[in-house]
Amino acid sequence: MLAPDLRNKLLRAVDDGFDDQIRFLADLTRLPSLRCQEATAQDFMATALRARGLAVDRWKLRVEDIQHLPGFSPVAVSYEDAWNVVGSHRPAADSQQGRSLILNGHIDVVPTGPLDMWSQPPFEPTIVDGWMSGRGAGDMKAGLSANLFAFDALARLGLAPAAEVYIQSVIEEECTGNGALACLQRGYRAEAALITEPSAETLGVAQVGVMWFQVKVRGKPAHVAVAGTGANAIEACFPLIEALHALETRWNETRHPAFAEHAHPINFVVSRIEGGDWTSSVPSWCTFDMRIGLYPGQDLAAVRAEVESSIAQAARKDPFLAQNPPAIVYHGFQAEGYVLQKDTEAQRLLERCHATVAGAALGQRTGTGTTDARFYGLYAGIPALVYGPKAENIHAFDERVELASIRRVTQALALFIAEWCGVQTRG
Amino acid sequence: MLAPDLRNKLLRAVDDGFDDQIRFLADLTRLPSLRCQEATAQDFMATALRARGLAVDRWKLRVEDIQHLPGFSPVAVSYEDAWNVVGSHRPAADSQQGRSLILNGHIDVVPTGPLDMWSQPPFEPTIVDGWMSGRGAGDMKAGLSANLFAFDALARLGLAPAAEVYIQSVIEEECTGNGALACLQRGYRAEAALITEPSAETLGVAQVGVMWFQVKVRGKPAHVAVAGTGANAIEACFPLIEALHALETRWNETRHPAFAEHAHPINFVVSRIEGGDWTSSVPSWCTFDMRIGLYPGQDLAAVRAEVESSIAQAARKDPFLAQNPPAIVYHGFQAEGYVLQKDTEAQRLLERCHATVAGAALGQRTGTGTTDARFYGLYAGIPALVYGPKAENIHAFDERVELASIRRVTQALALFIAEWCGVQTRG
Repeated sequence: MLAPDLRNKLLRAVDDGFDDQIRFLADLTRLPSLRCQEATAQDFMATALRARGLAVDRWKLRVEDIQHLPGFSPVAVSYEDAWNVVGSHRPAADSQQGRSLILNGHIDVVPTGPLDMWSQPPFEPTIVDGWMSGRGAGDMKAGLSANLFAFDALARLGLAPAAEVYIQSVIEEECTGNGALACLQRGYRAEAALITEPSAETLGVAQVGVMWFQVKVRGKPAHVAVAGTGANAIEACFPLIEALHALETRWNETRHPAFAEHAHPINFVVSRIEGGDWTSSVPSWCTFDMRIGLYPGQDLAAVRAEVESSIAQAARKDPFLAQNPPAIVYHGFQAEGYVLQKDTEAQRLLERCHATVAGAALGQRTGTGTTDARFYGLYAGIPALVYGPKAENIHAFDERVELASIRRVTQALALFIAEWCGVQTRG
Repeated sequence: MLAPDLRNKLLRAVDDGFDDQIRFLADLTRLPSLRCQEATAQDFMATALRARGLAVDRWKLRVEDIQHLPGFSPVAVSYEDAWNVVGSHRPAADSQQGRSLILNGHIDVVPTGPLDMWSQPPFEPTIVDGWMSGRGAGDMKAGLSANLFAFDALARLGLAPAAEVYIQSVIEEECTGNGALACLQRGYRAEAALITEPSAETLGVAQVGVMWFQVKVRGKPAHVAVAGTGANAIEACFPLIEALHALETRWNETRHPAFAEHAHPINFVVSRIEGGDWTSSVPSWCTFDMRIGLYPGQDLAAVRAEVESSIAQAARKDPFLAQNPPAIVYHGFQAEGYVLQKDTEAQRLLERCHATVAGAALGQRTGTGTTDARFYGLYAGIPALVYGPKAENIHAFDERVELASIRRVTQALALFIAEWCGVQTRG
C-alpha cells in the first residue's frame, strides 16, 4: 500500500499536469492516424517518449517477422510505412523489488465516414461541456495520454518506477492486432499489461474474438433490357448475408458462460459492399465485407468452416451461384476470444487504485469487440487489464471522450504504477 | 424501284468491300471507346469519313448547348473530351429528286467487367465460326461499319446519293443519349434516319423508356461490437430495392399495347452498389444505382414521383430511415419510350430492301431497352428505323456479332440509300 502522503501527491501531480495532458491529447488527435497513415502520429509519440528520457525503439512492421506466430492476421495492405513505437524505462541496476509493466495503447484510428455527418471536422478536436470530440480522441488517444501522463506524475515528484515500464504505441489494433503482436515478437514482456482502451472505467474481463472476411460473388452480366437472362451479383448477396445472420442467431442462442448476461454478444455486420460497373448492365460481380464476433475458445478454423458452409448452403439455392460458388477471402482480424485470468494480483491492485480515485468499486465488463489484450493474455501469459476512460460514439460520428474520466483514469494509473513497480528517486 | 442490274451491282459491291469492312470493324473494335474515352475512336471515324470525301464536322458536346432541350439527360461526368463526329455528303446542286437520310450509330461502349471472365481480351477482336467477338463489336461498331460501307458500295460503282446523307458517329448513347441530342441541336435533320443497332435484322417498332437514378442511404454508424445501436446503411437498402421491384411487377401487369406480347417488358435492375468504409464499423452510408424501364407515353415526372413514393413508403418502415429519408439523385438516362410512326414510306422501303437481301419478310420487335431513335422520332418528327445485325452477349462477356448478318444488313442499307436518296454519278 502506498503511503497516504505519496498517494495524495501523485493524485495532485496528475492534476497539475492535466492541462498539459489535454493539450497533448488535442495535438495527438489532430494527427489523422488512419490506417497506413500512422507514421506522423508515431513520430509525435516518439518525440514525447524521448522528451521523458525514455529509450525509444521505433521499428517498421514486417509480415515475415510475425506471420508464423499465433494471433497473426493476414493483411492486404503494405507495411511500407507501418511503424511501432515503444518508450522503455529501465530502473537503476540496484533496484530489484519492483514488478515490470507494459502500458499499451494503439495509435491507429478508424475512418471518419462522410465528413458532413460530423458536427465538427473530425481531426479538429473541440471541447464542449467537458468532452473532447474528434476521431480517435476516445479510441484511444486519451488512453495513450493517460499512459504517458501517469508516468509523468511520478517524475513530477522526482520519482521513477523501480522496475521496467514499456510505454507502447502500436498500430493495426483496429484491423489485425499485428502491431501488438510485433511487440511480443520483438521481445517485450512484463509481469502485467495495462491497456487503456475506452472501457468507461470498467475492467474488461472477457472479450469476443473477431474475424473479418470478404465474400466475392460473381453474376452473369446481361443487358438490363433482358435482365431475366442474367444473374444479378448484387441481389445474389442478400440471401448469403441472411444465411450468415442465421448463424449469428444460433451463436447468440448458445452462450459462452462469460457472456451469459449479455443481450447480444455476437454481432455479424455487413460493413462494406461494392458491386457492378455500369447502370445498364446486370452486375457481374459484387463483394461484401463481414465482421463477425466469436466466443473465447471457438477455434478459428472451425469458425471458418461454419462460415463457409453457411455461405455454400445458401449459394446452392441460387441457380447461378450453385455453379459459380462465391469465393471467401480472409484478411484482417483472425482474432480469438479472450478471458482475463481470474483474480490476479494486478487486477486486485487495479481495483484498489480505481476505488481510491473513483470512490466506487471497479465494475467489470465483457466486451463484444476485441482489443490487443488477447496477445498478452493468450500468447505470453501476461495478465492484460483493459481499463480506460469513458468515450462515446466510438467508430461513429462525433466520437468524444470525457475529460473528467481521463483525469480519474490517469490518477488510477499513476497509483498503479507506483505500487506495482515501486518507486525510486529519479537518477 | 431500283433497276435489277443496279441492285445486283450494289449487292456485289458490298461483297467486294466486305473483307475491308471486317478489317475496319476489327480496327474500330480495338479502340476502347468507353465513356469519357471515345475520342481516339472518334478520330478514327473522322479519318474514315474524310477518306470518303465527306465533309467532317467534329465538335465537343457542351451541356449548356443542350440542357434546355427535351430529351436531355443530366450528367455527372465531364464533357471535356466528349466529341461527336458527322460526315456529310451533299449532292450536286442540280439534283433535287432524292430524299435526305441520317445514318446513325454510336461509338461508345459499355464497360467490360472483370477481364478474367472474357475468353479473349475484350478489345482484341477475334473471329471464330463466322462471329467477331469484342466489347462493342456488336453494340454497335458493326452498325457503324455498315453505315460507312453501304455508302462505299455506291461509290464503288461511281455513284453517289442524290440527296444529303449524314453519317453520324455519336457518343453517350449508352448512358444519356446526349450525343444524338447534340446532333439535333446542331441542326442535322433528314427525311428519315436509320440506326444500325444490333436488332438481329428486325425492325424496332417500339422501345421502352429508361431512367437511371441513384439512391443514397445514410445509416447510423457504431462500433460493430454494439451493432444493435447503429443503423446499417447497407442492409437498409434491401427493402428499398424490394419496394422498387414491387413497382416493376405492377408495371409489368398493366401493359402498354405495344408490349402486350412481351414476357417481361419492364426491367428494374440494381446495377451498382457501394457502401461502408471500415469492416469494424456499422456502415453509415450506402448508395445504389437503379436502371428502370418505362412505357411509351409514361411521363418522366410522373415516373419519378412513383419511384420516390415507393422508396419513401419503404423507408418509413425503417426507424432510422423514417427520420433520415434516402436521397434520390437523377443522372444518366431520363429517356422517354418511343413508338415508331406506323407504315411510313421509309419503313416500306426498308422492308423491301431487307426482303431482297434476306429472302424473308422483315420481322418487327419491341425493345426493352432504349436507343437514340427516340430523339429523331419524338423531338424532330423524323421516322427513325432501328435495323442492324445480329449480335449476342451485348453488355455481357464475350460480346459477339455475326459476320454474315453484317453483310446482309450492309447490302440492305446500300439498296435503301440508293432508292431513298436516288443516285447520281460521282462528281
